[in-house]
Amino acid sequence: MQTDINLKDEFFESYRKRRLIKLDIATVIGIIGGFVLIIVSILLGSSISAFINIPGLLIVVGGTIMSTLIMQKLNVVLGAVKVAIKAFFDKSDSPDIIIKQIISLAEMTRKQGLLALENENVEHPYLAKGIRMAVDGMEPEEIIRTLKIEINSLVERHEAGHKIFKFMGTTAPAMGMIGTLIGLVQMLRTMSDPSTIGPSMAVALLTTFYGAVLAFLVFNPIAENLAGKTDQEKIVMNIILNGVDGIARGLHQSLIKDSLTSFLSQKKRNLR
Amino acid sequence: MQTDINLKDEFFESYRKRRLIKLDIATVIGIIGGFVLIIVSILLGSSISAFINIPGLLIVVGGTIMSTLIMQKLNVVLGAVKVAIKAFFDKSDSPDIIIKQIISLAEMTRKQGLLALENENVEHPYLAKGIRMAVDGMEPEEIIRTLKIEINSLVERHEAGHKIFKFMGTTAPAMGMIGTLIGLVQMLRTMSDPSTIGPSMAVALLTTFYGAVLAFLVFNPIAENLAGKTDQEKIVMNIILNGVDGIARGLHQSLIKDSLTSFLSQKKRNLR
Amino acid sequence: MQTDINLKDEFFESYRKRRLIKLDIATVIGIIGGFVLIIVSILLGSSISAFINIPGLLIVVGGTIMSTLIMQKLNVVLGAVKVAIKAFFDKSDSPDIIIKQIISLAEMTRKQGLLALENENVEHPYLAKGIRMAVDGMEPEEIIRTLKIEINSLVERHEAGHKIFKFMGTTAPAMGMIGTLIGLVQMLRTMSDPSTIGPSMAVALLTTFYGAVLAFLVFNPIAENLAGKTDQEKIVMNIILNGVDGIARGLHQSLIKDSLTSFLSQKKRNLR
Amino acid sequence: MQTDINLKDEFFESYRKRRLIKLDIATVIGIIGGFVLIIVSILLGSSISAFINIPGLLIVVGGTIMSTLIMQKLNVVLGAVKVAIKAFFDKSDSPDIIIKQIISLAEMTRKQGLLALENENVEHPYLAKGIRMAVDGMEPEEIIRTLKIEINSLVERHEAGHKIFKFMGTTAPAMGMIGTLIGLVQMLRTMSDPSTIGPSMAVALLTTFYGAVLAFLVFNPIAENLAGKTDQEKIVMNIILNGVDGIARGLHQSLIKDSLTSFLSQKKRNLR
Amino acid sequence: MQTDINLKDEFFESYRKRRLIKLDIATVIGIIGGFVLIIVSILLGSSISAFINIPGLLIVVGGTIMSTLIMQKLNVVLGAVKVAIKAFFDKSDSPDIIIKQIISLAEMTRKQGLLALENENVEHPYLAKGIRMAVDGMEPEEIIRTLKIEINSLVERHEAGHKIFKFMGTTAPAMGMIGTLIGLVQMLRTMSDPSTIGPSMAVALLTTFYGAVLAFLVFNPIAENLAGKTDQEKIVMNIILNGVDGIARGLHQSLIKDSLTSFLSQKKRNLR
Repeated sequence: MQTDINLKDEFFESYRKRRLIKLDIATVIGIIGGFVLIIVSILLGSSISAFINIPGLLIVVGGTIMSTLIMQKLNVVLGAVKVAIKAFFDKSDSPDIIIKQIISLAEMTRKQGLLALENENVEHPYLAKGIRMAVDGMEPEEIIRTLKIEINSLVERHEAGHKIFKFMGTTAPAMGMIGTLIGLVQMLRTMSDPSTIGPSMAVALLTTFYGAVLAFLVFNPIAENLAGKTDQEKIVMNIILNGVDGIARGLHQSLIKDSLTSFLSQKKRNLR
Repeated sequence: MQTDINLKDEFFESYRKRRLIKLDIATVIGIIGGFVLIIVSILLGSSISAFINIPGLLIVVGGTIMSTLIMQKLNVVLGAVKVAIKAFFDKSDSPDIIIKQIISLAEMTRKQGLLALENENVEHPYLAKGIRMAVDGMEPEEIIRTLKIEINSLVERHEAGHKIFKFMGTTAPAMGMIGTLIGLVQMLRTMSDPSTIGPSMAVALLTTFYGAVLAFLVFNPIAENLAGKTDQEKIVMNIILNGVDGIARGLHQSLIKDSLTSFLSQKKRNLR
Repeated sequence: MQTDINLKDEFFESYRKRRLIKLDIATVIGIIGGFVLIIVSILLGSSISAFINIPGLLIVVGGTIMSTLIMQKLNVVLGAVKVAIKAFFDKSDSPDIIIKQIISLAEMTRKQGLLALENENVEHPYLAKGIRMAVDGMEPEEIIRTLKIEINSLVERHEAGHKIFKFMGTTAPAMGMIGTLIGLVQMLRTMSDPSTIGPSMAVALLTTFYGAVLAFLVFNPIAENLAGKTDQEKIVMNIILNGVDGIARGLHQSLIKDSLTSFLSQKKRNLR
Repeated sequence: MQTDINLKDEFFESYRKRRLIKLDIATVIGIIGGFVLIIVSILLGSSISAFINIPGLLIVVGGTIMSTLIMQKLNVVLGAVKVAIKAFFDKSDSPDIIIKQIISLAEMTRKQGLLALENENVEHPYLAKGIRMAVDGMEPEEIIRTLKIEINSLVERHEAGHKIFKFMGTTAPAMGMIGTLIGLVQMLRTMSDPSTIGPSMAVALLTTFYGAVLAFLVFNPIAENLAGKTDQEKIVMNIILNGVDGIARGLHQSLIKDSLTSFLSQKKRNLR
Repeated sequence: MQTDINLKDEFFESYRKRRLIKLDIATVIGIIGGFVLIIVSILLGSSISAFINIPGLLIVVGGTIMSTLIMQKLNVVLGAVKVAIKAFFDKSDSPDIIIKQIISLAEMTRKQGLLALENENVEHPYLAKGIRMAVDGMEPEEIIRTLKIEINSLVERHEAGHKIFKFMGTTAPAMGMIGTLIGLVQMLRTMSDPSTIGPSMAVALLTTFYGAVLAFLVFNPIAENLAGKTDQEKIVMNIILNGVDGIARGLHQSLIKDSLTSFLSQKKRNLR
């Protein structure tokens, strides 16, 4: 029995360590690297000042924000900043650690009964809720129903977040086009001196440039990043759902393991 | 027991207060702010009059309305104005208040039986219908079936509203392009005096500008706003559906609470 | 009992009246108004003859028809004209009249048994089929299965119609672009006399203009109109499906009413 | 009894006749008519030779083929030619003939038992498989499961075919744009003699023209044509699925007829 | 009995042979052929050096990579290279070989019981897992549930791979546009000498060219290739799922064969 407990302690330790929120290094590299690339390629041909146009920046950024405010409630839009920060951190739970914990809980259930789980210190709130419901003697069907609501409602809440960034990703280029149209109309109306056409048009095109950069280096990749993180969280929650179902129905840990490792790739399964 | 009733009174009070239709401040800021931004950025380069072209405005706005009239019945298109006004108000029910009320009703049912709910003053019409059906002794399955029809038919009705704005959001830029094509063809046919090319083209581009502004500062964000409000209403209705199901099946209030709080985010759950 | 029969007669009368196919006034206004708008805005700047180019019109209209012939069978494409005419008429059944009739039939069933429905004159063919199957003693599950096939197959048949107009709505602008490319290539090859560039390009742009007008004032809104009418018909058929199910299972009319009014908006329910 | 058999013979005869693969006249008219239209509209303004550019044609056609080869296995791409030929022929089974045959088989089953079907000559392979499984005494659920796999796998196989043409329909215009970009870059680099700009640009635009014509007169309509044929085949297979289910469960032919005619439009039902 | 075993040995042999990972010749031809085509069509008009612009290439390739890094975790993006290599190889299992093996296993089960499968050497890991669970005496429903998780989780993992290439396929042209905008703005600002306009614009257009080539000759077709391979793998896994279900339920091999051959096209069935 000792070995079991030791094993558990060991992975609980590693669980806690890995849960320490990690900076998502790729996101940071990507966003800094992307802007550095653009700045460098500008500097190869001109000074950076040629690409700075405060009114143009205002209309693209401001217009995108205004359009987003129409689309969503104030607190959700303000919350979007917080959501965007999520894209820079990686606090997803490792599926294999969760699986190990569930198997150890299933083993304990088989040996000491469901009530033995009551004093277990389960960190993952979703797993904790499932275990508590099982310990309370709720029917497995009822537990599954409740946990499914939990998954669906988490996905829906997160999707509201992605939607804002997707919306910004389509609105920013449109605002860029609106800015360019304003510049073009003003330029064309007073086309007396042909030598001013070039510089005026250069300024007009800057808003299109801002819109494209914002959309393709900020909003769209962040929207996809968040969607990917939700998919990951969903997998972990589905693992927990299946595991708790197995525990509540009193299945043998090897059966539960068979079922849960099906969520992992062939390679990860063999490694463990 | 006193405490329970007091608690209930207290939240009923707050429920009534919060139900007072609130102006959706973000939508108002967004639409006013958006137009102010565009006007300011025009004024930085020219007078506003350079961007006013009544025939151009007529073809974009009129063409979009005509296309929408082909698409939908007269009363639905007229109703769209009313629907658009909805986007400026926030009369959504707070999920946690609804959950509190359902739990209190579940508690009452456990103590005094289903018939005790008959005299309860339930404001939310959907919850009221569900409770009434439960009191009338309808089978839980039958209640769920009826409430699901209600959700689906509400969503379908609302979607007909969003569709009009989405349709306008794609039609307005197309009408802008049609207006610009008319202007370009007229300009190109009589290209005798090169000095008139600029101003003529400036006027031709205005319809494209109108189409883009209408689509990205009015129609598209309003369509998304309405879709978001429908999603919110759907969540509240799903909470009620699950709650009424629990009440009709005589479940314990703590079980119902477990199930219903699953619709809320982790944070909101702890706050309560 | 007299009152009941009177009520029924009264709504049967109004049912017949309303079934008289009505012109869908919005569609007619939209399509005429749209073209008037475009013609007026052309006349403000030039004569209408500048926008008439028979070969250009031929390539856009003809090319779209040819592409559609490749896509679908001859009789379906010819039938599309008939389908388009549907968009101009409103022969949808009013959901509340259907609900009233179903409730009256349910009442009759409770009083006189299912066989009493045999001599009822039910006009709606789908309702008539459902009632006949119930009278014939078919199992409710079997009736539902048959009626669901009916709904799905109606929706699929109608969707084939919408698809043709959606296809035309994407093909017409493409044909317009092809026409413009032909004109541009011919103009550019013989660009000896700069004074002819303008008029040649004006002519080349006309096909793009035709394609956009056809797509956004004819094909796309008609496709959406037909899709909306299918949605409406689907709701009526779902009401009938639920009503016939209730009648076949011998449910009380008030229960059926509860279920069927769930398909209506809150407002329409109270009005009745 | 004689009448029944005569009836059957008669429709089997017509079945065989109609099964003779017919040329899909609309597809042939569409593709020839489309190219004639484009050639005529070219001839109105210049000779056809101005629109022939072998290298341009090579990059659009070749590039599209190469991209498609990356996307799919060699035998599937080669098979796509065969699939495209399908679009020119109409060998779909008429739903009403299949329904008549199923009803006659159901009648025979009621009179002589399931085993009587053993010697029936059923031509449609899918119906034959279903009947054979019923005669073999397989459970109706098992038959339905097997036939559903058959439908899904046919649809998936056909969809792989449509996908190739849809892919070509989006890749061809892109290859056209790549060709035009190559031409533009070469023209702009050596822009010494302004008189050569026009003709060079005319040539550059030809690839865009080729890409658009291929996409909108060949690939896209063929993709839609094949999708429509798959939908038709799916309806016939669903009719057979329902019919075989009825026969296997020993339902009365009038019940089966009620169920199967639900797949047809109101008009076709009455005609028969 | 001898014949059976011989047959089995024979196909096991061919199975092993065919499993040898084959180069997907079409993908290799497509990617090399595509680039050769583009290079040849460039050489027809100018030297290749006119199309090489290192900073432009850097901004398109680098920007696409940076954007992708924001979107996904570092190890997933690095893994994408490995995933891309998959597109060049064909290691899919032949459905008919898998079917033959399942039928032979089913036959063995009918003759010698489920436990006889224990010593069978099953290579396909998914089939092996299913067989092992059946031998272990798991309920068929439980086996199906576990195998379905396996399919869904494989599809989800693979889709994460496709998504990266689809994302790159939309980001690369956007980065190309950003590069062109930078070049245009720099050119327009210093438009003093008209003779430099052409060459500058030629260079500016190169990034658009790079973006289009990368998207339509590399990223998009690879994304579709991987999606197609996943579909194929899914079919094989569904065949195994159905086969293991049949074996676990002790069905006769001819029944299993009927069910599994439904996954194949009519032609492949007859050939075998």
